[in-house]
Amino acid sequence: MSKTAQVGIIMGSQSDLPIMSEAAEILEELGVSFELTVVSAHRTPDRMVDYARSARERGLKVIIAGAGGAAHLPGMVASMTSLPVIGVPVKSSNSIDGWDSVLSILQMPGGIPVATVALNGGKNAGILAASMVGAFDQEVGQRLDEFKNSLRQKVEASADELSAIGWRAALSKKAN
Amino acid sequence: MSKTAQVGIIMGSQSDLPIMSEAAEILEELGVSFELTVVSAHRTPDRMVDYARSARERGLKVIIAGAGGAAHLPGMVASMTSLPVIGVPVKSSNSIDGWDSVLSILQMPGGIPVATVALNGGKNAGILAASMVGAFDQEVGQRLDEFKNSLRQKVEASADELSAIGWRAALSKKAN
Amino acid sequence: MSKTAQVGIIMGSQSDLPIMSEAAEILEELGVSFELTVVSAHRTPDRMVDYARSARERGLKVIIAGAGGAAHLPGMVASMTSLPVIGVPVKSSNSIDGWDSVLSILQMPGGIPVATVALNGGKNAGILAASMVGAFDQEVGQRLDEFKNSLRQKVEASADELSAIGWRAALSKKAN
Amino acid sequence: MSKTAQVGIIMGSQSDLPIMSEAAEILEELGVSFELTVVSAHRTPDRMVDYARSARERGLKVIIAGAGGAAHLPGMVASMTSLPVIGVPVKSSNSIDGWDSVLSILQMPGGIPVATVALNGGKNAGILAASMVGAFDQEVGQRLDEFKNSLRQKVEASADELSAIGWRAALSKKAN
Amino acid sequence: MSKTAQVGIIMGSQSDLPIMSEAAEILEELGVSFELTVVSAHRTPDRMVDYARSARERGLKVIIAGAGGAAHLPGMVASMTSLPVIGVPVKSSNSIDGWDSVLSILQMPGGIPVATVALNGGKNAGILAASMVGAFDQEVGQRLDEFKNSLRQKVEASADELSAIGWRAALSKKAN
Amino acid sequence: MSKTAQVGIIMGSQSDLPIMSEAAEILEELGVSFELTVVSAHRTPDRMVDYARSARERGLKVIIAGAGGAAHLPGMVASMTSLPVIGVPVKSSNSIDGWDSVLSILQMPGGIPVATVALNGGKNAGILAASMVGAFDQEVGQRLDEFKNSLRQKVEASADELSAIGWRAALSKKAN
Amino acid sequence: MSKTAQVGIIMGSQSDLPIMSEAAEILEELGVSFELTVVSAHRTPDRMVDYARSARERGLKVIIAGAGGAAHLPGMVASMTSLPVIGVPVKSSNSIDGWDSVLSILQMPGGIPVATVALNGGKNAGILAASMVGAFDQEVGQRLDEFKNSLRQKVEASADELSAIGWRAALSKKAN
Amino acid sequence: MSKTAQVGIIMGSQSDLPIMSEAAEILEELGVSFELTVVSAHRTPDRMVDYARSARERGLKVIIAGAGGAAHLPGMVASMTSLPVIGVPVKSSNSIDGWDSVLSILQMPGGIPVATVALNGGKNAGILAASMVGAFDQEVGQRLDEFKNSLRQKVEASADELSAIGWRAALSKKAN
Repeated sequence: MSKTAQVGIIMGSQSDLPIMSEAAEILEELGVSFELTVVSAHRTPDRMVDYARSARERGLKVIIAGAGGAAHLPGMVASMTSLPVIGVPVKSSNSIDGWDSVLSILQMPGGIPVATVALNGGKNAGILAASMVGAFDQEVGQRLDEFKNSLRQKVEASADELSAIGWRAALSKKAN
Repeated sequence: MSKTAQVGIIMGSQSDLPIMSEAAEILEELGVSFELTVVSAHRTPDRMVDYARSARERGLKVIIAGAGGAAHLPGMVASMTSLPVIGVPVKSSNSIDGWDSVLSILQMPGGIPVATVALNGGKNAGILAASMVGAFDQEVGQRLDEFKNSLRQKVEASADELSAIGWRAALSKKAN
Repeated sequence: MSKTAQVGIIMGSQSDLPIMSEAAEILEELGVSFELTVVSAHRTPDRMVDYARSARERGLKVIIAGAGGAAHLPGMVASMTSLPVIGVPVKSSNSIDGWDSVLSILQMPGGIPVATVALNGGKNAGILAASMVGAFDQEVGQRLDEFKNSLRQKVEASADELSAIGWRAALSKKAN
Repeated sequence: MSKTAQVGIIMGSQSDLPIMSEAAEILEELGVSFELTVVSAHRTPDRMVDYARSARERGLKVIIAGAGGAAHLPGMVASMTSLPVIGVPVKSSNSIDGWDSVLSILQMPGGIPVATVALNGGKNAGILAASMVGAFDQEVGQRLDEFKNSLRQKVEASADELSAIGWRAALSKKAN
Repeated sequence: MSKTAQVGIIMGSQSDLPIMSEAAEILEELGVSFELTVVSAHRTPDRMVDYARSARERGLKVIIAGAGGAAHLPGMVASMTSLPVIGVPVKSSNSIDGWDSVLSILQMPGGIPVATVALNGGKNAGILAASMVGAFDQEVGQRLDEFKNSLRQKVEASADELSAIGWRAALSKKAN
Repeated sequence: MSKTAQVGIIMGSQSDLPIMSEAAEILEELGVSFELTVVSAHRTPDRMVDYARSARERGLKVIIAGAGGAAHLPGMVASMTSLPVIGVPVKSSNSIDGWDSVLSILQMPGGIPVATVALNGGKNAGILAASMVGAFDQEVGQRLDEFKNSLRQKVEASADELSAIGWRAALSKKAN
Repeated sequence: MSKTAQVGIIMGSQSDLPIMSEAAEILEELGVSFELTVVSAHRTPDRMVDYARSARERGLKVIIAGAGGAAHLPGMVASMTSLPVIGVPVKSSNSIDGWDSVLSILQMPGGIPVATVALNGGKNAGILAASMVGAFDQEVGQRLDEFKNSLRQKVEASADELSAIGWRAALSKKAN
Repeated sequence: MSKTAQVGIIMGSQSDLPIMSEAAEILEELGVSFELTVVSAHRTPDRMVDYARSARERGLKVIIAGAGGAAHLPGMVASMTSLPVIGVPVKSSNSIDGWDSVLSILQMPGGIPVATVALNGGKNAGILAASMVGAFDQEVGQRLDEFKNSLRQKVEASADELSAIGWRAALSKKAN
């Protein structure tokens, strides 16, 4: 694994990649280095222990861990590192509407927090990781501000469009 | 830890003892040997790995694991042993009505089952463990049948009492 | 029904077969003998009583029972045998997101446990049954260890692939 | 058991008596004969079968069955009689907020309905049973109309009181 | 409306007809006379009042009322008649998973019960209504017993088929 | 009832008075006239019809209706007036955590809205009613602005106190 | 933005337009003037502050705000104006069944109410806004009464159709 | 406010202090500087804007924001700063079991993440903030490792005690 990455993205199974790759995409856009791999709490516990325990010395600043169902990966990794761990609840098939994943990640006992984001919130996990790096890295902080600006501009452009063409036209454009 | 115990009872914290001791009580009553200790997935991960990996060779036949909140102990132990693992969701303080513990234990991914019992179901976990032993041990099976008989007799005695004294009398007896 | 089967798989309706056959598949793979049939708590109560009461003497070691909605089959069978009963909540049509089936199976009263697995967890029910047999049968235990190994190897192969071709390539491969 | 009772009230355990006695109270008030006893689906399955199968020939017109947790009594009785069965979900200790009992009784599969009333709705179960009898018995129907009248009069008296003494006075009267 | 019908089936909107017609179908099959129309608590309150208040004198013995969302029809009708009212929660579009309809019908206050059946349980509502009539009408009771028999026979035929062709064949037959 | 009141406050039972009197308190404080009485959808349907149908001509501008459990009062009143109706879900005993009341009031079908406020939100219902009046009455609008100011000032005073005495002192003050 | 509009419709994103345009449609039908635009609490906080603070002086009487997920727009706008604010919970993708949006809008703290309507209840939000205007504007009130009449007539026409062609014909017409 | 603090702790109301002071306690123990004050999204929106917008330039590295009910503070602050924001759902009175607060904080839309911790998880919020600082500050990282060690030692001491005095003695000690 990369020596220089600042963010480690891990997931319990490659089936989580469509969600977790959103974290990778936004980190790339924000210029924050990262690594990405598959680590399963239940199927590769030793690999998980190695990953978590070596994370800090390998130079990582944050770990993003995604998993579905009874999602133990984020919490178990958090128990074995002093780095902040961001948990992404993934709505897997046979999930009970995502509640299982959300509660398994969020409701950690006292002493071992996981920074939980919204269900399927891969992109937000990436932004949150960038904000942790950006708190200490002025350039990343600035790119986050620019990203926020772009969000604002998109809303304003949308409002302008609505105002220009009217809501009925916007609605039928949407439907087509 | 005992070399001869058939059932291992573990819990994430001594605060789970009031629930988990119910498993111990009923196993004692059913004549099934057991050991009981504290093992935390998040606070003593190494201890958990050692416990799970040595369980089979130490002679255990079943492990009962109880935990609250984002309860990872039963699932993590199950990932590291071929023995059956019974999970007891414990309703801890700050739990979201017990749902967190129930879903964190129940909704295990394909390949790593946990035999989940009812919220705070320490006693039922003990009976379930005994039934697993009793499937292969005629004497324990017989004691389970006797236990079921005693449950039946209590209900019948209760029905007889109701019939003898009437529901109003039974109700006011209850209230006093 | 077979005299020599170790595991009995029953379900409330043939519509549960796609879920429950996963238990059969994995038991076959793990070399544990089983029988499979349809028994309904509500539509064939006598057949259920016969099945449950004769299970032990017919040589079964575990019963796997699946049902949806207000799922009473696993609990009722558990009330009439000293064998361990594994309950599989099945998400049927008109279910309220599966909660009805999960809670009807999991929340058994004191004295009558059901070993509940995840919603639609037919495969995990099979593995759990095998682990109960394997606790007393070294060969089955070993096959379970090999099965766990194969799970680990699949995750490692997945990680190797990700590392070799990169996450973007893996993602677009997935999409195609 | 009484030969002449029209309504049979059963419950899984005497601990349900405070809720289920409300059905008895109101049936008495409405002049509908009833019997009351303890029958447990899980602890006395044979007793339950006998009760359900003999109910019609013993002259019962309705059965009211209350139970908590994974409440199987109402549904199992319904599967063995052609009489209407009213189910009362009881919020027992260790219940998950009553949802387990509500869903185990309500979500019956096609073919075997249970007439479910509100959580802890013992009184409403009694009224519902009376309305079934009253549909065919003019006198009982009339007493139900009078009962409805009395409910109306209580509300009107309450409105009159509020109007006479004012809401502040009513509120402080309440607090004392 | 029919003078001789024993069961009145009403629904809040014709969009509920696919669910509510199941009640009609089974009542027809069981030889119980019924009428069926649209009555909305919120859009035709006067019509609802007329329907509920005249129901008894028109000869109805039971009313089946179905509605979705904040479903007030069953409870409001129950407040204006001494006949038993069966409520069918319908899972409408924009429902919050059916919970709104279930709870709006089930959780009636003390004094005004509604006999609630499962979500979308139109068929079960019809059977329940028939059982109320059948409690006083031996012929209907007998047809209900025959109906139960037919349910049993279907399960037994399904078990026989599974036994004859094996589960794999049954599974692939299902898939085709 | 008062001819000049602008807001009508009604509740299903006097047991809702502690919650609903909060609406009265704040309306008094904001100088908006109101009347308050008990009207039950289920126990006094005629009274409810009269109240709703006469509300507008009696000069009311808004109706606040509170009820618990399967709460039908707000929605039924809304179906019979063109005035805005504010619904207050009340968490009654035997409620399923308040969900029944919230969903019975909130999830109204298309055409008949109820302006729902938070569980037990009597005070907020009063403020909301005042804001509807205040939209057309400058003086009431101004009093609402002053009310908002007072909320702001309380928070600022609290922040000042925290800053002056420190959080530890504030905490122990709280505990005493 | 329009100076003369009485109702302001805002939404967090143009993706909410299909729901929120239903409010516009019905307001147009009821002859109540409105404006519609996009304002995001999280992406354009300044724009939101400007919108909320200027609303009253620009002549608005009510604001309708729709948003999904952790929906903060309605509550934040309500905190900055004395006008009534109607909140529309929108079920966005990745929502947890809409619960997030419903609870984020409904459960406002004391002092800052939001008039919440049903999930995806854009149309009802429009009707509710019209009823607030109509409380002070006789013409709008009358149009609301006519609208209610039209709802009634549709139900009656539907009942007539059912009665004329029978439920089976109506059902098969529906299916085609 | 302090110029040198690294962590800013804010809460919607002083009633959240018992929960939020746990963050302060642990930060003090871990040697991370912090400031603590009251800022309400709904009652002091301007104060919130000022706090969020000046946070970075005042030297803060992380903000911890706690709130109950429809909790908008964490998300609104996150929308106005590039710093990471940790959200603490507080279970307030009249909360619907804490779900409102959890979902209002967790389910943020794409672009604006909040690092959510468990319900009432003030202490975990403090530890998470420290881990963000500690990722870039070796000394804090070390203190976190020592803290983790102390958690481990407490569990081991608890296990030793159980082993020394036995579970029955431990249980009765607990009860006294």
